[in-house]
Amino acid sequence: MEVKQLRKDAAAILRAALKAADPSEAVAAALRRRRDLDKYERILVVGAGKAGGTMARAAEKVLGKRIAAGVVNVKDGDPAKTRRIELVPCGHPVPDERGAAGAARIAEVCAKAGPRDLVLCLISGGASALMPAPAEGITLAEKQDATRLLLASGATIHELNAVRKHISTLKGGQLARLAAPAKVVSLILSDVVGDDLDVIGSGPTAPDASTFATALGVLDKYGLRGKVPGSVRERLERAETETPKAGERLFAKVENQIVGSNQKSLEAALAAAKSLGYRSLILASTIEGETRDVARMHAAIARQIREYGQPLKSPACVISGGETTVTIRGSGKGGRNQEFALAAALDIAGLDRVLVLSAGTDGTDGPTDAAGALADGATVTRASTDARQALAENASYAYFAELGDLVITGPTGTNVMDLHLVLVG
Amino acid sequence: MEVKQLRKDAAAILRAALKAADPSEAVAAALRRRRDLDKYERILVVGAGKAGGTMARAAEKVLGKRIAAGVVNVKDGDPAKTRRIELVPCGHPVPDERGAAGAARIAEVCAKAGPRDLVLCLISGGASALMPAPAEGITLAEKQDATRLLLASGATIHELNAVRKHISTLKGGQLARLAAPAKVVSLILSDVVGDDLDVIGSGPTAPDASTFATALGVLDKYGLRGKVPGSVRERLERAETETPKAGERLFAKVENQIVGSNQKSLEAALAAAKSLGYRSLILASTIEGETRDVARMHAAIARQIREYGQPLKSPACVISGGETTVTIRGSGKGGRNQEFALAAALDIAGLDRVLVLSAGTDGTDGPTDAAGALADGATVTRASTDARQALAENASYAYFAELGDLVITGPTGTNVMDLHLVLVG
Repeated sequence: MEVKQLRKDAAAILRAALKAADPSEAVAAALRRRRDLDKYERILVVGAGKAGGTMARAAEKVLGKRIAAGVVNVKDGDPAKTRRIELVPCGHPVPDERGAAGAARIAEVCAKAGPRDLVLCLISGGASALMPAPAEGITLAEKQDATRLLLASGATIHELNAVRKHISTLKGGQLARLAAPAKVVSLILSDVVGDDLDVIGSGPTAPDASTFATALGVLDKYGLRGKVPGSVRERLERAETETPKAGERLFAKVENQIVGSNQKSLEAALAAAKSLGYRSLILASTIEGETRDVARMHAAIARQIREYGQPLKSPACVISGGETTVTIRGSGKGGRNQEFALAAALDIAGLDRVLVLSAGTDGTDGPTDAAGALADGATVTRASTDARQALAENASYAYFAELGDLVITGPTGTNVMDLHLVLVG
Repeated sequence: MEVKQLRKDAAAILRAALKAADPSEAVAAALRRRRDLDKYERILVVGAGKAGGTMARAAEKVLGKRIAAGVVNVKDGDPAKTRRIELVPCGHPVPDERGAAGAARIAEVCAKAGPRDLVLCLISGGASALMPAPAEGITLAEKQDATRLLLASGATIHELNAVRKHISTLKGGQLARLAAPAKVVSLILSDVVGDDLDVIGSGPTAPDASTFATALGVLDKYGLRGKVPGSVRERLERAETETPKAGERLFAKVENQIVGSNQKSLEAALAAAKSLGYRSLILASTIEGETRDVARMHAAIARQIREYGQPLKSPACVISGGETTVTIRGSGKGGRNQEFALAAALDIAGLDRVLVLSAGTDGTDGPTDAAGALADGATVTRASTDARQALAENASYAYFAELGDLVITGPTGTNVMDLHLVLVG
């Protein structure tokens, strides 16, 4: 297949991947598949996240009047309109009092749910910041102080969450506990590598593996026990009410269902690529690491397909996903997906019928209006600027803008991280 | 399959890969496959490289008295013993006068070859430094000066070679031209990514794509025309005798045959893995980039196999190769293959029946007596030291030494770069 065809096909494969991550379709499909909705007395909808408005709207479309009440915290400016579910605009990425007030309302809805009710929980990326519920005696500012100190110390996401879950009232399975004895169904759009239920939105409906002791251990590891606000330290040391743990009876009535994720989008891409006639495989959906090195490895696979027909004979499509990291070295404008395409361009230069595409599923790659970019064997020679130089300056945006090879989707309203495609015709 | 079995199998797969790269077996097999050896009047053997002694010895074993004369430049201390081919011990990696004297003898042998003779050329890693032949009027020291300046300026290997080939008398196809009108068969053990014939040993029997103008362009690009020794500049500006180019008649009687390479070793590994019952694939044989990021991507593939049966269902073996680079951040002892295993260990921690092995085919990884190391899902918890800390200090050797998980082969006498294995049982 000619490069022109590869470009068309890559765009179609990307579209299929984005469709699978569409919050509206994902929620509607998940609800339509359920056979138990009629048996509940009331359906109450709660949740939070950057896709909250779209997810709530989709739930209303399917459930209509079955929804008795609902509160979902959304990002300031979310354009979605709903009738039965109240959307609460909140601060993001820095949580604010509106978020805390919305979280209190969500807690109220959960607390009022009875044994014959269904609490439908809609979770997407950003839920943790959009649904802040500091434990009694701790202010939002104090909780944020603790978070900032941990981040600055280099704590991992798991360490950070161990602390946060123990100074909050909804995170770490506590929302599910509040909703008991109602049935809880969480529809979750995952924006984290690996789709760990207790990481996405800090796991409001998932069992928590960490304890107060874990949280204190994290503080001590980074020498922060004396540095966090006194209210935080005291709560952790008091260790009064543990977060719910796996195996606790309440989880018998809790279902956590991932309705959109990088993996699901890769599988949709795989199906699309196969239907277009490509021998196709998914490499991995949890790829992290320095963008340019990950990109070079994808380019090496492209060369291998071209030269040796390994791991697949052409026409071939290799699909992967995750979230890489750019170490900023220059002052140029770009994003990790555009940088991915630029680094790959250098390593596939001169190859016939080879295409590499990288795109963020949220449609916004770094501080740009592009989702990503694509590169072929002629990219490096077609550009008027030096690719190596542009890469050194992290100036991928201008580089691909000149070539007309930015991938522009506009904001997609979803986020299941990034997608990488290697096509060899 | 249990981890214990995976370890055994990985060792067997590595052995198969090393066997395919064994210079002795590679040369013997290539010569035994030829049907034309009887038709030449004389067989003259020349060459250079770190595997030169072993390759020469293998040629003698097959050809015996058919060899009329021979000179092969080898690394100081090469233990091989030969009867008909003279082995000339030379300096490496810094070329010396012994190398230049040997190169002059090699040129003599080639020059005396007639139209009914066969010149058998044995090339392996290090050949470029071991067979220095500065052009008339240029001293070895001046040639090295130019090389050093180019390296310090960040010139690529192709740029460096364009200059070197034009200030030498054997590189860039010139050995083949000297040997004309004899038949020339080059048996080549490739230690470079991509196996470019004009890069391995600076391509003494391969057409040269670069010209005097290319070489001057390189000097100008890095502002070195006024800085290289006058003799070098003058020769390039005089531009008297071009290196031989593709399509020139002399190459009709030249055969360049890669007898050992990363790709060949990966294919041997693939066959071994399949025969052990693993669903197997070769990912790529030209992987470069920062070691830990490449390793993390391999770990992501391991997780994908474990969790989703993609790109292969278990038992699965993913094979790759190339030469990664460690950016030294700490002061620990290690090598890129041991660092590969360490970085992977962190990302496969906790996984059942997963093994990652990385090894240098020369048996010497960095300044250590190990070829590499292997990691499984329990590596991180079995060690008494912190894996993240060890990685930050580039201290992979001590880390794996404690666990007994170094891969020790001893020096193998070959070098086709590195091998990476991911096994999931």
